[in-house]
Amino acid sequence: MSIPDKVINRLTLYHFILDDLREDEIFISSTKIAKLLNIDDSQVRKDLKILNNSGKCHVGYNVKELKKSIEEQLGFKKTKDAFVIGAGNLGSALAKYATFKDYGLNILAMFDNDINKIGKTINGKEVFDISKVGNLSKRLNVDIAILTVPREYAKGVANFLAGAGIKYIWNFTPCILDVPKDIKVWNENLIGNFLQFTNNDEVKENKNDK
Amino acid sequence: MSIPDKVINRLTLYHFILDDLREDEIFISSTKIAKLLNIDDSQVRKDLKILNNSGKCHVGYNVKELKKSIEEQLGFKKTKDAFVIGAGNLGSALAKYATFKDYGLNILAMFDNDINKIGKTINGKEVFDISKVGNLSKRLNVDIAILTVPREYAKGVANFLAGAGIKYIWNFTPCILDVPKDIKVWNENLIGNFLQFTNNDEVKENKNDK
Repeated sequence: MSIPDKVINRLTLYHFILDDLREDEIFISSTKIAKLLNIDDSQVRKDLKILNNSGKCHVGYNVKELKKSIEEQLGFKKTKDAFVIGAGNLGSALAKYATFKDYGLNILAMFDNDINKIGKTINGKEVFDISKVGNLSKRLNVDIAILTVPREYAKGVANFLAGAGIKYIWNFTPCILDVPKDIKVWNENLIGNFLQFTNNDEVKENKNDK
Repeated sequence: MSIPDKVINRLTLYHFILDDLREDEIFISSTKIAKLLNIDDSQVRKDLKILNNSGKCHVGYNVKELKKSIEEQLGFKKTKDAFVIGAGNLGSALAKYATFKDYGLNILAMFDNDINKIGKTINGKEVFDISKVGNLSKRLNVDIAILTVPREYAKGVANFLAGAGIKYIWNFTPCILDVPKDIKVWNENLIGNFLQFTNNDEVKENKNDK
């Protein structure tokens, strides 16, 4: 069954909440989850229905069972290996982002074209020469790349990755890639997210603006 | 007029495309934009109608005008100042993310509680003691915080920020904050995004999984 993107997103957030509860909190209500996320509790109940995990009246959802259902549904325990392309600031930060591993994303190695970076190890992940992507993606059975190269190289590198057997590109660059149809690209649009968040008149603007 | 989040997100992506065109490309068609993003061109036309910027038959949209309309609509030129809370890997990467500035996000300073980080400068942004947030947010008129502290400190720090006059928290931690109602939180759910992207059966899974 395919789950809508928004639901996947919310289920992840519910899991964060469950993960933060004290050991002695056995049950949780949809109202509590909803309140923390500032959403409607009917939305929470609707999302959780997908998991076939029903709450009990006056008691709520069993925390352990609910956590397990979300994990199974979203595949946290099915590890997906990925490469980080670009061992700069953002690439290194993602390679060090400990929580990814808990949610099934395992960064196996990094790639760069800078000889000063190649051969180094960042959080246990070796930085390889970018030319080795194809070889290592075959050997290690990896088809996910997390793209964090500078904007001006993004398109060229993406096409190189497509030729090297990569099938999924999680694109952190502010650049729209132009790759063959069979490559799935997900634009992690940080700037768009920020603008959504602040696109209202209340945010204080810098007074030096023209 | 309030623009739906998804439209804001797409308009940003359209702008990335326009920004990448060669100087001599005067016009662009909705079909070209749609193809690059793998979406329907009627969607592109509908989004661009919001800007009151209409394309001409057989010619398309004037690139310069379209860029300007998107910039005005989304307020790229109205700079919003923000603080980064947590001068670790991700915080430093965001402080160094050059493109933010082009899209109206100006990171003014960073904050941490680690005496080894306080006083340092990352990409021209000084790292201050976290206790100074309140004082500096008032003096510099900043009410946006980008939260990148370790997961276990996220809740406590968020509440401290709320008390220090911060009104908007862009939350990069995998933790749901529990702050007063008047604080607007945007969860940058990297894990949820990754799961959306890979939540299908085609992604190669690590064979060592149970």
